[in-house]
This record gives sequence, structure tokens and C-alpha cells, in this order.
Amino acid sequence: MPAMAEPISATITGKTRVLGILAHPTDHVKAPPGINAIARKRGRDAVMVPLNVAPADLPAVVAALRLVQSFDGAIVTVPHKQAILSLCDQISPEARAVGAANVLRREPDGRLVAGQLDGIGFLAGLRDQGIDVAGRRVHLSGAGGAASAVAYALAKAGAAVLTLNNRSRHKIEAMADEMRRTFPQVDVRLGDRDPSGHDIVINGTTLGMKPGDALPVDITGLRPGMVAAEMVMEPEITPFLAAARAAGCQIHLGHHMLDQQLQAMADFIGL
Amino acid sequence: MPAMAEPISATITGKTRVLGILAHPTDHVKAPPGINAIARKRGRDAVMVPLNVAPADLPAVVAALRLVQSFDGAIVTVPHKQAILSLCDQISPEARAVGAANVLRREPDGRLVAGQLDGIGFLAGLRDQGIDVAGRRVHLSGAGGAASAVAYALAKAGAAVLTLNNRSRHKIEAMADEMRRTFPQVDVRLGDRDPSGHDIVINGTTLGMKPGDALPVDITGLRPGMVAAEMVMEPEITPFLAAARAAGCQIHLGHHMLDQQLQAMADFIGL
Repeated sequence: MPAMAEPISATITGKTRVLGILAHPTDHVKAPPGINAIARKRGRDAVMVPLNVAPADLPAVVAALRLVQSFDGAIVTVPHKQAILSLCDQISPEARAVGAANVLRREPDGRLVAGQLDGIGFLAGLRDQGIDVAGRRVHLSGAGGAASAVAYALAKAGAAVLTLNNRSRHKIEAMADEMRRTFPQVDVRLGDRDPSGHDIVINGTTLGMKPGDALPVDITGLRPGMVAAEMVMEPEITPFLAAARAAGCQIHLGHHMLDQQLQAMADFIGL
Repeated sequence: MPAMAEPISATITGKTRVLGILAHPTDHVKAPPGINAIARKRGRDAVMVPLNVAPADLPAVVAALRLVQSFDGAIVTVPHKQAILSLCDQISPEARAVGAANVLRREPDGRLVAGQLDGIGFLAGLRDQGIDVAGRRVHLSGAGGAASAVAYALAKAGAAVLTLNNRSRHKIEAMADEMRRTFPQVDVRLGDRDPSGHDIVINGTTLGMKPGDALPVDITGLRPGMVAAEMVMEPEITPFLAAARAAGCQIHLGHHMLDQQLQAMADFIGL
């Protein structure tokens, strides 16, 4: 992701539009250099700065951001993704479906619109690598916010089969019910760790971030020609991807999602 | 002021400290490039962005800034200089004397400290040009916030005589009373437009900003060897300075105050 490593080189003036990243803490957040590089490439006079806000203080800070007329929007991340919803005036269908937002836009009148671009970013990342999900059979592990967002986006993009796999069964039962209601044309199945018979196998859990993590799927079910896609970004090659590569799958790295998501967030904020 | 024209070149990350300039509107504010250049020169990972806040919204925004843990402070300018005082926890003697602040610092616990550096910046600008006010007779026109701040700083720095001149007499009467109480060792006088008999003649009014403005003093009283100092920044050479130069005075430009004040503000905020 070369854009992330570039220094921004901008003259911030009184006319510069301000973007934030709402997080707590903010030390680890990775988006500002990427968004600032996008702003520069698009020729926009805008800059993203970290806004480190504790959960208890989020309502007061978000209420105040409505009043800052030079503020255009923010990326919203841990631990604010759920709490932000009740503080916004309008919530995108994706954010409503997932029960979380990861971006907000401030309209000129101060109204705040929340969006959820995890799924849109993930799909754009696949598309950017030449992978189309329409008509495909997809196996998805995980039932957290990011996985839910990806499930929603996969269904919306026309996946034929969507098989859900999660250690905690009741979460995917609820998720499957919700998906079937919203996307009756998609064959939503409750699956298990075996990805056999699918075209695209996605790890939407955090398994693989820590050494010694279990694998998200039974790798003996992986076959040549399958796409194995990761949502974990570090390490770049997770044990799941390494096993998938060894099994002859086409692998898809976690950072493609972030790359595309930053573009989608910039679009959403109006950058 | 070459530092003001330089682009900032920085990588803003999740660790970058955030500074603001509170104004309404913010389009015209000049401080961000200067402060950002100072941050870069000092090797500090901090960035100033414009915070455009209407007067009615100032209390809510300032209350929220206490809660933003990545925020270290702000320059405060028109129209918030007076209103900011009641929103801070601690007020510097200069800000209290002037009844206005132009900078605030956020302590790590969220407490806000207001400062007023117009006078300190003006004095530092004079000093930087080799002009010392200690023991000198100073003629000062104006009774607004900036002029009051300069009067306070002149007295504190040991001016022997401080003659106040203002079209509206009652303002300088109140100001003179206040100055005499705080600085009994200074000979504070109520003067008029005639600067005769002084060593340093300062325009602390806004006269000279607009074409056709009256002159702040009677220029027939200017003599070679006097210092004529301006607080107006644009135009660089005001009619007052042009007349003073023609009369053989040493002239002192308005922007010296801003240059030094930015350094003083950076110091105050802890940059």
C-alpha cells in the first residue's frame, strides 16, 4: 500500500476542510496518511487528524462536531462503531444491517450521516483483483461487524450461495434469518468449517492475527481454483492464506479491503 | 515572513497532536501555515487545523475540545476572543487585564488555560528589531483589545511614560486607571493625537487598513530618531508608517508582532 507510506505535503490554511478519525486510543490508527494521500491526489484541500475520544465522551464530542463548520466528516473506529449510530441523523442501509458504522459525513447544515463501508470496501477489493462474486458460491467465516458487513455486500452483489460459518452458532442463525429476509434471492446456508463446494472462501474472523490462532476453516476442503480471501491485514500472509496457497487456491490479501475502503470512505465523505 | 509561505510537509498519523484555530469564519486566518512551520522546525508531531465555529456554538465546541485527548490547544480569534474567557478554567494575568484571550492550552486532564499574547508578541517583535522599551516614553493610539494588551506589556516591560490616545476618551480613562493601579511605577498619561516628546509612537488602532482612513496621530509631531511602530499588518506600509519614514523615524512593521506572537503561542501551547 504505497500511498500509506507517503508523507502528506500540504499547506493547511484557514480554508482547509477538516476530517477526523474518531477512535480511542488513536495511536494505532492507520487511515490518516492514506486519506490525506487521497485528498492530495484528488486535489482537495482537506486534512484528516486523529480525534482521541473516550466512549463516555463520544456524545458530547459528536454533538460539537455538528457545530464545527470546517468539519466534513470522520472515519469511526474502535470502540465507537456501534455507539455512533444513535448519535447520527441518518444511517445507511449497510450500517443499519450491520448495527455499526465506520464513517460519518457532516452535511453543510450539521446533519450527520453514518455509513458502513467494510463490505463495500471488501467487494471493491475483490473486484479490483478481477474477482466477481455474482453467481458464485461463497463460504464466509465470522459473525462480527466486519463479517456481517461483507455478508450484506456479498448478497447485494448477487452471490448465488452464501454459507455462514461461526463458532458461536446462534449468531449466524440470527444473521442468516436477517439475510434471507433482506435478500430472498440468495441461498443463505448455515455451514461449518468445511469450505468444500464453494468458489470463494473468506476469513471474516480475527483468527490468524495472533500466533497460535486456530484456522478459520478446515483446510483439507480447499481446492485449486478456489479464491481464498482474507480480512485480517497483519500478518499479510495468515496461516489460512499460506494453507490456501499451498492447496493451489488464488489468494486475496486483507489489505485490498482497506485500500478500497479508504477510497470508498473518501467518496462517502465527499472528498 | 517566509515561514508563512512554506508548505508543511508532514505525515499525520494517529499519534499526531491536534491544534485548532477557533474563528468565524476561518477563511481569512493566517496562523496555520506559520504554526505548522514552527512545529516542523521544532520537530514536533502536531498540526493546526481551522475550527470554524459560530459564536452561539462556542460553549459546546469548547466543552467538547476538553474531551478530545489528542487536542493540545488553539489560537482564538475574532469573534471569540472575549467569549472564550468564561469557558476556560484558568486565565493568564494578560488575558484578565485585557478582558480577552487569543490562545488556549488544553492540559492533559482537560483543563483549559487562556492566554493573551498580543502584547508579549508585540514586545518580542520590537526586541527582535533591537528596540527596547525600558525607560522610554511611549505614545500609544487605540483602546481595543490589542492596544490594551500592548499597553499592559509596555508597562510590564518598564516603559517610563505611557501616553494613551483614543478618539473615544472614556475608554482610555478607564484603561489609564487600570494601568495606574497595576503598574504604579509607570507614568500613565491621557494624551491626544500629538506624539511630540515621545521615543516610541505606536498605532494600536485599525486606522490604515482601509484606503482613506484618518491617520492615528498628528504626523507633524513626528521627529527623526523616533520609532514609529505599527500593529496593522496589511498594507505593510500604512500611511502612518509612510509619513513616519518621510519624517526620518525608524519604522517597525506590523507583521513583526505576528511573527513573534506565533512563536509565543507555540510556546504557550507547549509545542
